[in-house]
Amino acid sequence: MRYRELRERVLDANLELVRAGLVVLSFGNASATDREAGVLAIKPSGVAYGRLRPKDIVIVGLADGKVLEGSRRPSSDTPTHRVLYEAFPAIGGIVHTHSVCATAWAQARRELPCFGTTHADHFHGPVPVTRHLSPEEIAEDYETNTGRVIAERFATGGLDPLEVPAVLDASHGPFAWGSTVEEALENAVGLEAVAAMAFCTVALDASAPAIPQELLDKHFRRKHGPGAYYGQPG
Amino acid sequence: MRYRELRERVLDANLELVRAGLVVLSFGNASATDREAGVLAIKPSGVAYGRLRPKDIVIVGLADGKVLEGSRRPSSDTPTHRVLYEAFPAIGGIVHTHSVCATAWAQARRELPCFGTTHADHFHGPVPVTRHLSPEEIAEDYETNTGRVIAERFATGGLDPLEVPAVLDASHGPFAWGSTVEEALENAVGLEAVAAMAFCTVALDASAPAIPQELLDKHFRRKHGPGAYYGQPG
Amino acid sequence: MRYRELRERVLDANLELVRAGLVVLSFGNASATDREAGVLAIKPSGVAYGRLRPKDIVIVGLADGKVLEGSRRPSSDTPTHRVLYEAFPAIGGIVHTHSVCATAWAQARRELPCFGTTHADHFHGPVPVTRHLSPEEIAEDYETNTGRVIAERFATGGLDPLEVPAVLDASHGPFAWGSTVEEALENAVGLEAVAAMAFCTVALDASAPAIPQELLDKHFRRKHGPGAYYGQPG
Amino acid sequence: MRYRELRERVLDANLELVRAGLVVLSFGNASATDREAGVLAIKPSGVAYGRLRPKDIVIVGLADGKVLEGSRRPSSDTPTHRVLYEAFPAIGGIVHTHSVCATAWAQARRELPCFGTTHADHFHGPVPVTRHLSPEEIAEDYETNTGRVIAERFATGGLDPLEVPAVLDASHGPFAWGSTVEEALENAVGLEAVAAMAFCTVALDASAPAIPQELLDKHFRRKHGPGAYYGQPG
Repeated sequence: MRYRELRERVLDANLELVRAGLVVLSFGNASATDREAGVLAIKPSGVAYGRLRPKDIVIVGLADGKVLEGSRRPSSDTPTHRVLYEAFPAIGGIVHTHSVCATAWAQARRELPCFGTTHADHFHGPVPVTRHLSPEEIAEDYETNTGRVIAERFATGGLDPLEVPAVLDASHGPFAWGSTVEEALENAVGLEAVAAMAFCTVALDASAPAIPQELLDKHFRRKHGPGAYYGQPG
Repeated sequence: MRYRELRERVLDANLELVRAGLVVLSFGNASATDREAGVLAIKPSGVAYGRLRPKDIVIVGLADGKVLEGSRRPSSDTPTHRVLYEAFPAIGGIVHTHSVCATAWAQARRELPCFGTTHADHFHGPVPVTRHLSPEEIAEDYETNTGRVIAERFATGGLDPLEVPAVLDASHGPFAWGSTVEEALENAVGLEAVAAMAFCTVALDASAPAIPQELLDKHFRRKHGPGAYYGQPG
Repeated sequence: MRYRELRERVLDANLELVRAGLVVLSFGNASATDREAGVLAIKPSGVAYGRLRPKDIVIVGLADGKVLEGSRRPSSDTPTHRVLYEAFPAIGGIVHTHSVCATAWAQARRELPCFGTTHADHFHGPVPVTRHLSPEEIAEDYETNTGRVIAERFATGGLDPLEVPAVLDASHGPFAWGSTVEEALENAVGLEAVAAMAFCTVALDASAPAIPQELLDKHFRRKHGPGAYYGQPG
Repeated sequence: MRYRELRERVLDANLELVRAGLVVLSFGNASATDREAGVLAIKPSGVAYGRLRPKDIVIVGLADGKVLEGSRRPSSDTPTHRVLYEAFPAIGGIVHTHSVCATAWAQARRELPCFGTTHADHFHGPVPVTRHLSPEEIAEDYETNTGRVIAERFATGGLDPLEVPAVLDASHGPFAWGSTVEEALENAVGLEAVAAMAFCTVALDASAPAIPQELLDKHFRRKHGPGAYYGQPG
């Protein structure tokens, strides 16, 4: 079995989605890419998390979407992952969930404001919402177009996908990513936490203002980029 | 012991209600039918989930409601299940819970709108609410009439029970079903998840519109029916 | 060690408070009475649940409140329990918690309306709120007066404590009871569940009406009293 | 290894943050001080809770902030802890979390009102909110200034840190403390519980009044200070 380490990391990330309470049933999926090998590894479609084994993780060609290894059918969202890996060359992992609070913001089609430092630790500004897909974009290549609409949102908004490593797909739910699948998972966990906090914040004050810009910058920069001093030396 | 497999599947479904957080105490019940044998298997009435064994599952005649096997009294809701199996010939399992969010919608007597793809993956449109039973329907054959009012809601609404495999019983709580008891369980878990998401969605935007029709159709059809491509080949 | 069975039942009820998520830290307490022996058994004051052993449960005289067995100081709420056992001769167990949703209703000093059958299965009507204690009632014999104000609420309201086996103590939290401590525990668990459902119900419809009276009567009576048919024969 | 007991207590407090549901990922931190030795012990920065061992706990000089023992970099919030230990000489432990409900109040910049006895058992009055740091205070010595602004809030408000052993840091989250790290932990757990109860209370009644002053005093005093009678004799 090639790609053993990649499969095991993707399996771990998928199982962590359950432990972190971000998914139930067979909702959601996590993937990682090996760009040198030109592949991504992803959860199989519709298989219960409790039964997943390393060999169930499917290896798919990044360029053509063909299954290279594995007897399972890959996640139906695989084309979305492929488009995102192509549009965002710096990312190495993607996590899609239907976590309750982040999905509620996506369903209300409200971008997630940055109300505090928990948010600023992960996302350098609001987490944006996509536009709806057109009926034509839904009718053909739906999952590919889902990825394109996310990439479009980041291009038109001038957003850096590693500065704002998540999106709320309108009437659908959150996608999070990172330079590795482990980082993508952290961003998905953080996103649900801040979506819950923000939900309670607007219930306590419907016109709560966003975090001051200098505090947002401070918290994001103490964890990310060249001046970061949070965490242990590499 | 006949019906060993049927009992074990019904036992598993009942225990899963606890693990999924859909019930506490002795709330709720799950059943499955063997239509060829003309029986249903159901949880005994008022027995704590932690003590349930396969032999406690009661086998009841579909046609006459008589206990065929088991020393326990069947769930007091057994007549509701029998009416539903009769009214909806395509279903093979039923799950009734008092899960918090779905029950809240039932208590507020608001149908559950389809706000997103999580809902659309399970239910092809809003989950309807029944009318209240009349005092006469409560006074006599209450549990049988509970089933009849659900069947009436689907008949007058022109709803297909496998396209919308759940209902909110007014001032009571949710019933979900499926072609098997395992599918019924998935629909009960999915229903509580989407009831929670919808609760948060209307709190974020009291006039949040429903999902676009083409996105609803797309998500339901990619999982259900002849063109489905979600999951593994049969 | 006398009262071994009584201690073990009281210990089990206290530990179940933790497992059911009704308490954190050393919040809350459960007691049971042996009326023939003239004693009650109760949790010690301020001891972490994880360290409780049967010998830690304190045996107290019902009539005089003196510690009869045990090296621990009994719960500071013991005088409240004694007054309730005296005022409500039919009860055999009491559970006091600070469970989140029931406490919120007590803090908002809103009686808990009966919105559905989950409530009606446990309580034959709204769960009432007490009046506040006067400064004098707080200054002296606070815990005894807490019990008296609960008994007063039931006397002036003409309420039967086994038909409505719980109360919301204003700005404090819930007390639940039953003919045994196991029943008291069921009522405490049921109370938190219906307090959560009712919280969501009024959020979905601020003027949601109560359950129809005939449905309330039907559900309470199918579980309680001479015509009950829920559960297994005694 | 010196400070073995101190390290183990700090490790236990940090791990309990996870078990109590107050943190996810590497959010939050707990510390304790040995004032005689002039040190504090604190969680390392950005290390997953599941991997923490006693040797990972970092020993830092109270006066100068230098690492005295341990190969890890201490929590980036260490300067905040140092300022608080200096400003509040009676405290022996500090716990910082991003627990959802307390953080929401901090993000809405609303002080947490005392609505009931659960709150009064821990905090003798509302839990205050700090002012925002100025851009200059953020730009240089951010974490030190975070502590100074907390100390300033207590000084200007005339608050005793052992009577109100917590604060909501604006747009950030809660800090709790106590005479020991175990007490600090209890206050952090209690704070999240009362923040959740208060959230539900204001949702049920937007103008809910605070607890009567005499009931607030009674509950705080029965647990704290010379007349306390809650708990077991020392």
